[in-house]
Amino acid sequence: MNADARPSTLTTAEKASLTSGGDMWHTTALAGLPPVTLTDGPHGVRKQRTAPGADPFTGEPATCFPPAVALGSTWDPELVHRVGAALGEEARAMGVAVLLGPGINLKRSPLGGRNFEYYAEDPLLTGVLATAWVRGLQSRGVGASLKHFAVNSQETDRMRVSADVDERTLRELYLRAFQRVVQEARPWTVMCAYNRINGVYAAQHHWLLTQVLRDEWGFAGLVVSDWGAVVDRVAAVRAGLDLTMPGPDDAGDRALVRAVEDGTLSPATLDTAAARVLALVERAVAAADPDAAYDADAHHALAREVAARGVVLLKNDGGLLPLPTEGVSIAVIGEYARTPRYQGGGSSQITPTRLDDALTEITALTSAPVTFAAGYTLDGAPDERLAAEAERAARASDVAVVFVATAQETEGADRDGLDLPQSQLALVERVAAANPRTVVVLSNGAVVLTKPWDRAVPALVEGWLLGQAGGGALADVLFGRVNPSGRLAETIPLKLADHPSYLDFPGEAGHVRYGEGIHVGYRGFDAREQEVAYPFGFGLSYTTFAYGAASASVVDGDVEVRVPVTNTGDRDGREVVQVYAGLPGSRVRRAPRELKGFANVAIPAGETVEVVVRVARADLAYWDTRLHRWVVEGGDYVLAVGASSRDLRTTVTVRVDGDDVHVPLTADSTLGEWMNDPKGAELLRQAFAAAAAGPQGALARTFTDPAVFAFVGSLPLNRLSAFPGTSFSAEMIEKLVAAAGS
Amino acid sequence: MNADARPSTLTTAEKASLTSGGDMWHTTALAGLPPVTLTDGPHGVRKQRTAPGADPFTGEPATCFPPAVALGSTWDPELVHRVGAALGEEARAMGVAVLLGPGINLKRSPLGGRNFEYYAEDPLLTGVLATAWVRGLQSRGVGASLKHFAVNSQETDRMRVSADVDERTLRELYLRAFQRVVQEARPWTVMCAYNRINGVYAAQHHWLLTQVLRDEWGFAGLVVSDWGAVVDRVAAVRAGLDLTMPGPDDAGDRALVRAVEDGTLSPATLDTAAARVLALVERAVAAADPDAAYDADAHHALAREVAARGVVLLKNDGGLLPLPTEGVSIAVIGEYARTPRYQGGGSSQITPTRLDDALTEITALTSAPVTFAAGYTLDGAPDERLAAEAERAARASDVAVVFVATAQETEGADRDGLDLPQSQLALVERVAAANPRTVVVLSNGAVVLTKPWDRAVPALVEGWLLGQAGGGALADVLFGRVNPSGRLAETIPLKLADHPSYLDFPGEAGHVRYGEGIHVGYRGFDAREQEVAYPFGFGLSYTTFAYGAASASVVDGDVEVRVPVTNTGDRDGREVVQVYAGLPGSRVRRAPRELKGFANVAIPAGETVEVVVRVARADLAYWDTRLHRWVVEGGDYVLAVGASSRDLRTTVTVRVDGDDVHVPLTADSTLGEWMNDPKGAELLRQAFAAAAAGPQGALARTFTDPAVFAFVGSLPLNRLSAFPGTSFSAEMIEKLVAAAGS
Repeated sequence: MNADARPSTLTTAEKASLTSGGDMWHTTALAGLPPVTLTDGPHGVRKQRTAPGADPFTGEPATCFPPAVALGSTWDPELVHRVGAALGEEARAMGVAVLLGPGINLKRSPLGGRNFEYYAEDPLLTGVLATAWVRGLQSRGVGASLKHFAVNSQETDRMRVSADVDERTLRELYLRAFQRVVQEARPWTVMCAYNRINGVYAAQHHWLLTQVLRDEWGFAGLVVSDWGAVVDRVAAVRAGLDLTMPGPDDAGDRALVRAVEDGTLSPATLDTAAARVLALVERAVAAADPDAAYDADAHHALAREVAARGVVLLKNDGGLLPLPTEGVSIAVIGEYARTPRYQGGGSSQITPTRLDDALTEITALTSAPVTFAAGYTLDGAPDERLAAEAERAARASDVAVVFVATAQETEGADRDGLDLPQSQLALVERVAAANPRTVVVLSNGAVVLTKPWDRAVPALVEGWLLGQAGGGALADVLFGRVNPSGRLAETIPLKLADHPSYLDFPGEAGHVRYGEGIHVGYRGFDAREQEVAYPFGFGLSYTTFAYGAASASVVDGDVEVRVPVTNTGDRDGREVVQVYAGLPGSRVRRAPRELKGFANVAIPAGETVEVVVRVARADLAYWDTRLHRWVVEGGDYVLAVGASSRDLRTTVTVRVDGDDVHVPLTADSTLGEWMNDPKGAELLRQAFAAAAAGPQGALARTFTDPAVFAFVGSLPLNRLSAFPGTSFSAEMIEKLVAAAGS
Repeated sequence: MNADARPSTLTTAEKASLTSGGDMWHTTALAGLPPVTLTDGPHGVRKQRTAPGADPFTGEPATCFPPAVALGSTWDPELVHRVGAALGEEARAMGVAVLLGPGINLKRSPLGGRNFEYYAEDPLLTGVLATAWVRGLQSRGVGASLKHFAVNSQETDRMRVSADVDERTLRELYLRAFQRVVQEARPWTVMCAYNRINGVYAAQHHWLLTQVLRDEWGFAGLVVSDWGAVVDRVAAVRAGLDLTMPGPDDAGDRALVRAVEDGTLSPATLDTAAARVLALVERAVAAADPDAAYDADAHHALAREVAARGVVLLKNDGGLLPLPTEGVSIAVIGEYARTPRYQGGGSSQITPTRLDDALTEITALTSAPVTFAAGYTLDGAPDERLAAEAERAARASDVAVVFVATAQETEGADRDGLDLPQSQLALVERVAAANPRTVVVLSNGAVVLTKPWDRAVPALVEGWLLGQAGGGALADVLFGRVNPSGRLAETIPLKLADHPSYLDFPGEAGHVRYGEGIHVGYRGFDAREQEVAYPFGFGLSYTTFAYGAASASVVDGDVEVRVPVTNTGDRDGREVVQVYAGLPGSRVRRAPRELKGFANVAIPAGETVEVVVRVARADLAYWDTRLHRWVVEGGDYVLAVGASSRDLRTTVTVRVDGDDVHVPLTADSTLGEWMNDPKGAELLRQAFAAAAAGPQGALARTFTDPAVFAFVGSLPLNRLSAFPGTSFSAEMIEKLVAAAGS
């Protein structure tokens, strides 16, 4: 690296060219400065093939780890950290400086086409897991790119749509995970989103990219655009965007130079952006290792381990699962058992190093006969011959395992419904009628409806998208080699119309109103007291756990929750202990319960573990829109501890001291607000007593007759002067305000 | 009147003083110009007593007609017109020039403290009824004041709160009834609301008061402030407010003069406001009649007739109602039978000319024994003695009629729940257990929950607030002297949390987000496929009606729906035939069904009437937020005709030609939008074919591989130039756009 390549020694044109890419996947090479590579992720390294004529949509082979939908269901930051580290090893071995991930947008609607690339409908779970991922990745000298900043929770019209979101919802939900990861894991880069937020493109959003990200959160890395997200280079640099990708963008570079020359862009602002690109290059060069390699077999094994941990056992009536590995014949049904659905479409699509299918892996793990029947075709057309064959196979075997899946989810398009293909549902019904010992295994990037059809089957396995080793992972779960411990990171509703986002997704005419506000996902279902099919946090195990009474205490400002949990079954297992907080009577609207902490603990059969979950004080805060800051409200917080958001086993109340918040009385404060303030009440009573001695004595009733006060209590003090009979002049009101403040 | 009192002859100071009141209830007297009186309504004339020491909260006696909640339930514009005319007669007799009503804000939430003063949760029903009311009132030479303009659908923080509402929702829901009444009934005045709308006080909202109200709708009358609503007189006059009430407001008048002098307010703007005040005075003086009087007995009789028509029969299992007038002893239970709840609190509270109670009226109509038991006290405290006495009375009589009511609803405060007082519900349960022939009569200003307790009673009568003659009206309905025909103008939900507004009412920190958007009331329940207790439009009769098949045709652009309806019972009755429209596959999000017309028809027993409902073309339009205008979308509208929003008896589809809407292709149009346009698609294919011949040939797959197109279809054309490989320069894109537009 050329040590002279500093903004101070570069021309304006050179600086400008640094702030756009050198080509599709590299920064600009300049004055001896090497280009560094940024490449798609996040669940694998998608390094574009460079051979002449190579398909631009296909990458070099790399391990296809489970996509975020499965990582999110593990609820295990330690495991996710290992995935991040393995990805870092592969990226380094492939000469990639920055891997474009993790994707941490909230799953606002189950229709979101890219939900499979995101972790959860909850910002705490998302933030904790993504922090681990970034730490893992960056521990190997490869930079993360936290994306898509921000509020990119849909694909419909994604490059133009304005996500119209109120400030509190932004802070508590859509920005919260970004804040956590930035502050705890210090990612090398943050990637701005395509969409607009309250009318302003993310790439040009000064409040977002500078005020919030840098000034408030202390982000010191580089902000890169999503590919093609920048409409106006000058506006983007001014807002705090450092690197526009891809490139080159000669026209944009020239516009930057002109803007500096005509004074509409401060030279210092361009210097800063260019310096951040140089700093990234420097960091990448220092971390690069041309001899780096990775162990593809070990990574495949890790991919299998993680995939199994991401599986969620939704239903297991009569303990049908796990299946014995001998003596029980199995009909494996469904084309997806042979042709796995293991990742989604779009920029994250990986060319895997290997690909396991469930049929082969099941066959490998049992000594009993396995029969396969495709059951349906992938094009969705009804096929009576295949269905009849599947029915016969189910009838002839001890157990039937049916693999069903959604059509391909993809970046660029949202789904239009939550139903599985009709031909597959019909097959499930037919197989279950033929063999009551039927297990259904789902492969899908986001929730599908399970009601009412799952009544017909005793066992239901949510297999999400599990990456290249998913076939083996499913076999591991089905046979009990892995005791399932995955938990839902997204609510499965009874029907789409129940979902909090339903009325406002995906918006229209360039806008999508986030009408449900803070009530995203389970927060909304809980607030509306709605039934769901399977709640957030839910997942069964092959063993059972009992909870003792929780206790809680305040330690260094945080809340420490302790609860003894016993594995009451005869099989080792993992429990995900979840802590939800509520504050009854809060001064602001809150969801009944918000996830505030969790612990993922292995508990041997018959043993008891004291689980400790620390709830950070900062995570109890709400965003105060009058003060424009986080505020911890004082009060008795109800902490509900359990195995899901609706399976709360023990509750403890803890008193938390609030932040000091004083809202001064003003002339615009209402009579009710004055009367709620001890000093204000006294002053107001005196003033009214004096006024009541005047011509309009009946006003004295204002504070003595509750019916009258109900009527006038919402009157701001300064409106009194509009009513001549009150004898309240503007001057008198000024004096009252001064007295209240003194 | 002094003919010289014209803006041109007045000083600036005089003009300014004209634009604020002369006192609490009068315009400013000036240069021989008489003051004119504006007085609260709307369900009676609340003329403040002027005697020294008189209570400012009590008015001169006047007929207390049924409040808007009951008028809304009549679904009968002819009847409402008669109420308006009677109010006009009383106002004129009392020297009142402008009666402050009707209140036509939408009942957004059932918690709204002032819902009893509003008509419905639907803008069409509201607008049609309020048009009739204004026409009736003004036919007697008294001006209406259409209020509260606009979006004043809550009391909480009503003088400051910003109703944050998107444009389409404003136009189609919250402004729609105002538009109808302004254009069809030409009210003398419109009253601006206290609250802010999207951050701007209604009194200072130029878009609202000038652009929409005057420029678009053609309003030619005067805009008056709600009492005390003006914070900044200069800003208000500039926005289009003519008259600030009350007054005098010397400080504000001086501020206006200064603003004219220093050029911050155009003299013409102040002239216009003053001229409108003068025009109102002129109109009032011309219409005044010092000899006017009214017939209080006739108005009481009208109040009784209308009240009976506002009663909604919710349940009548086994035909328990109507009660015979002889041979059946009745236990009348509940203090409210003796102490009627007949109006709400606040500015609309009337001192009635007479007051009927149900107990007396029931006793007068039956020859059988009537026993009374108070059952509970009005303070809500449990009273075992009263409850036991009621139980004994119920057991000893053939039928029990229990009167229950909400605590007083009032202007200035919203309710905090939808439950009846616990002591009254307990009484209902106890009475119903003692006598299965129990009727419950409700008095309430807005919906109360009826589940699950109404399972215990065979008959349920929704009596709302019925004004001074409500006692007699309820007796008329109970004994069948009036066959009930009232229909719900607001949905009764199963629980509060089900309501579309639930998550966002009443807002916090000075803002209330109208998060449900266009899905107000039944629109939201229908969109989410939710069960309700009693749906919008519902109401039983003592007879039954059968519907034939509906037909529909387009007549002069409107849609005329015809349906034969037969009274299949043995009693004359009225049916409210409702027409709801939907447009499956619409280009914008719509509620499944929207009320588009209705007819209130008397049908003698055994007879068939062909009911004709004309749906105006304008009522089929949606507000296009890209074009900022109303657009009728072409297509096959499904018109569902029935007796409630969920009792749809016959459906007919009618093809409606759409307005000509052409959205031109631009550089910001997506590839998907280009491909949806025949010409655009052809141009784009040619351009891509040419580009594909270049170095990046793989791009040709963009339009041939559906998976690739799903991924890139949302890309705006001008972003292509960000991808160097596409060989699309900004110049090429300009040419494409030009070609598409040519």
